[in-house]
Amino acid sequence: MNSSKKFFAEGLGTFALVLFGCGAATIASISTSGPDGIGLLGISLAFGLSVVVMAYTIGPISGCHINPAISIAMLVAGKLSMKDTIGYIIAQCIGAIGAAGLLYLIATGSAGFAMPEWGLGSNGWGTGYLGEYNMQSALIAEFAFTFLFLLVIFGTTAKNASPIMAGLAIGISLALIHMVAIPITGTSVNPARSLGPALFAGGIALEQLWLFIVAPVAGGVCAALVRNIFLDD
Amino acid sequence: MNSSKKFFAEGLGTFALVLFGCGAATIASISTSGPDGIGLLGISLAFGLSVVVMAYTIGPISGCHINPAISIAMLVAGKLSMKDTIGYIIAQCIGAIGAAGLLYLIATGSAGFAMPEWGLGSNGWGTGYLGEYNMQSALIAEFAFTFLFLLVIFGTTAKNASPIMAGLAIGISLALIHMVAIPITGTSVNPARSLGPALFAGGIALEQLWLFIVAPVAGGVCAALVRNIFLDD
Amino acid sequence: MNSSKKFFAEGLGTFALVLFGCGAATIASISTSGPDGIGLLGISLAFGLSVVVMAYTIGPISGCHINPAISIAMLVAGKLSMKDTIGYIIAQCIGAIGAAGLLYLIATGSAGFAMPEWGLGSNGWGTGYLGEYNMQSALIAEFAFTFLFLLVIFGTTAKNASPIMAGLAIGISLALIHMVAIPITGTSVNPARSLGPALFAGGIALEQLWLFIVAPVAGGVCAALVRNIFLDD
Amino acid sequence: MNSSKKFFAEGLGTFALVLFGCGAATIASISTSGPDGIGLLGISLAFGLSVVVMAYTIGPISGCHINPAISIAMLVAGKLSMKDTIGYIIAQCIGAIGAAGLLYLIATGSAGFAMPEWGLGSNGWGTGYLGEYNMQSALIAEFAFTFLFLLVIFGTTAKNASPIMAGLAIGISLALIHMVAIPITGTSVNPARSLGPALFAGGIALEQLWLFIVAPVAGGVCAALVRNIFLDD
Repeated sequence: MNSSKKFFAEGLGTFALVLFGCGAATIASISTSGPDGIGLLGISLAFGLSVVVMAYTIGPISGCHINPAISIAMLVAGKLSMKDTIGYIIAQCIGAIGAAGLLYLIATGSAGFAMPEWGLGSNGWGTGYLGEYNMQSALIAEFAFTFLFLLVIFGTTAKNASPIMAGLAIGISLALIHMVAIPITGTSVNPARSLGPALFAGGIALEQLWLFIVAPVAGGVCAALVRNIFLDD
Repeated sequence: MNSSKKFFAEGLGTFALVLFGCGAATIASISTSGPDGIGLLGISLAFGLSVVVMAYTIGPISGCHINPAISIAMLVAGKLSMKDTIGYIIAQCIGAIGAAGLLYLIATGSAGFAMPEWGLGSNGWGTGYLGEYNMQSALIAEFAFTFLFLLVIFGTTAKNASPIMAGLAIGISLALIHMVAIPITGTSVNPARSLGPALFAGGIALEQLWLFIVAPVAGGVCAALVRNIFLDD
Repeated sequence: MNSSKKFFAEGLGTFALVLFGCGAATIASISTSGPDGIGLLGISLAFGLSVVVMAYTIGPISGCHINPAISIAMLVAGKLSMKDTIGYIIAQCIGAIGAAGLLYLIATGSAGFAMPEWGLGSNGWGTGYLGEYNMQSALIAEFAFTFLFLLVIFGTTAKNASPIMAGLAIGISLALIHMVAIPITGTSVNPARSLGPALFAGGIALEQLWLFIVAPVAGGVCAALVRNIFLDD
Repeated sequence: MNSSKKFFAEGLGTFALVLFGCGAATIASISTSGPDGIGLLGISLAFGLSVVVMAYTIGPISGCHINPAISIAMLVAGKLSMKDTIGYIIAQCIGAIGAAGLLYLIATGSAGFAMPEWGLGSNGWGTGYLGEYNMQSALIAEFAFTFLFLLVIFGTTAKNASPIMAGLAIGISLALIHMVAIPITGTSVNPARSLGPALFAGGIALEQLWLFIVAPVAGGVCAALVRNIFLDD
């Protein structure tokens, strides 16, 4: 498979993840809802099922990382070259920014649109953000959930596992992470997914972006190390 | 497989899609609900899971397009003959009209039924329609989501993909599209699905029908062209 | 496979269907809810996913009909002997009655339990029943949805279909039927599922039971005839 | 597969089950919600889908019991050695306690956190607990649902079943059990899942812990005996 196709696939996949996930959170959800909205369960499924769909769409082309924390963990685990890691991350960021831009374009066409703080599904924490968790809880949650997410990825794609079910299991695990962590940070575990909306929302979303780069990457790298030492077989 | 069986299958599949999707939107949902209704998530799953079910029911017979935008994209991609394309589209429209008629017949048997504007799950936009998005947002959303939907279809049915999971992934992607786009247009990405309810609802639903023919077909054709140029392998 | 094992499997499967489906409708749902309840979507998934689970649990033993309308349709389609049809139906009714009894036993242990009209998830129609649809709508809905349900069953288990996905598709189709038809009749499409709760609820639920025997059986038989004439290949 | 890897896998799997399931119940659900919460359906899916994910992640390593009632039933069915049974149960309890501790650590970082009675998703019954069911209903429900859960496990992993779908069916059956039994006991059917939160919640959750050890183990053992006598083929 040539590189440009793989990079195109990663960009497309991350575009879809942010469009569906942040789209459900922005257009169909908390801000507009009450009982007719899509709710925490709907947003969680939107993120998780996007991965399921993309795993079977672009998985055969690029492996469907659509997340810089996964690509870096794969680099550490020796499963992705440095050159491809850089290309994947750039493509993922472009895809995420494109999707946030499209959401912004559509949202401005609705009656009475105004960009709220942490708009377009931006991640965050602290006073005014969903469950108002502090920075320590945000760091722990993003680190621990990315760590667990990568162990699921390594386990479901191991040699003796069922390859056809891996995409389903990995996507569902991302939905589960959202089911718990949305009130804490909105749930990132993916620096590209956080970057896209933050660029358009600006302000506090952009100030808090660092945590959603540092914690997921650290969690992913630790999972890759644990796997290399304890699980490789 | 002879043609009449394929056309019967496409009619049956589109009948089921409109009966379940627009049925959830009409009988079990927004209009009657509050917290006991089926909600945006339920309507989204009704449309998406109808495709999952029909993919495994009629997929082996006709390929389960149940959507003129898909059949036209397959024609452009060189995967469906002109004769079959016309037969498929006619069967899809008959199935959609039949389902909308059955829903109308059942709905008139409920206490205090009155046909609302955009009734029976009709698509639309503007003042009075769900999130009150303007026509530009409606056009962008219907074009972009049909484009993405077709890329998922081409990707999951490519030679190196997992054929057994394609129906699941394609149906879930339609659910995801609804999770984002219901507040914008009610979500069409399928001219036949829009035609059925609009014929019975009349009025503004019928006036706005053109957009749900033009935008999905344009999105599908563009996806077929992109695939032919960049993705075919 | 000997007959007693098949009958035990059909009894167990119908027991599970009624326990999960009517249990979600009774214990976790409309009557106790508001926004914390399980809602129409939850009840629909409870019925549909019970079939998914049982298809992979008892499917290899008995085929997992767990519904007299299916067994009779299979008799008409020439896929089940008269002797097995009778044994299946008796086992299904025993399982359904047992599950309704267990639900009744558990429900009486809750603070302030009182049996409502159409209690334990009984099917019905008319004044006081959910969306207050008339008998004609109830008859049409039960007939049409059982007809469509059986076409899904015949299609997903046909020779050129994917046998491993049949249980998933069939169960999801039952969930979809509930997503539309709960406000109309509570959704039966299964005489045994209606019999169990009606015996314990008594009164109007028992008086209306006939429709949930006649309409599903008629719908199933018609689907079997259509299949024999048009679809058999 | 060496024992330490299997024990690590069981610990990791039970950690994930309690983190996602009790996390959804604690952080994203009833206590914080109203219509924007994740609801009974969301909590049910969180528990059930955790088993789906872990079945494909650690199933090839340890069989993915992540539940002492299952391990004991497997011992009775002659499918697990006494030594492994003990190791599995210890690992499961450690994983569950670790997850409850992590949830406690994160929860204390939210604005205005206070530990409620039966906190962190503890199981219970009686006055003040959800549907206020009495102890007899709690005992019957925990026994009957664990019994049925184990029959699903034995059936879906039998020789003539579809091994690739077993994890999906078993996890969905756990979701179904929660859809019915959350108002009764919060749903345990798993002594380790009950132990973790009860240790941190203390008080009445710890006093009532015995039922969630006795009833699930009794239900699991009975299912193993029924299988040995009636179903083994």
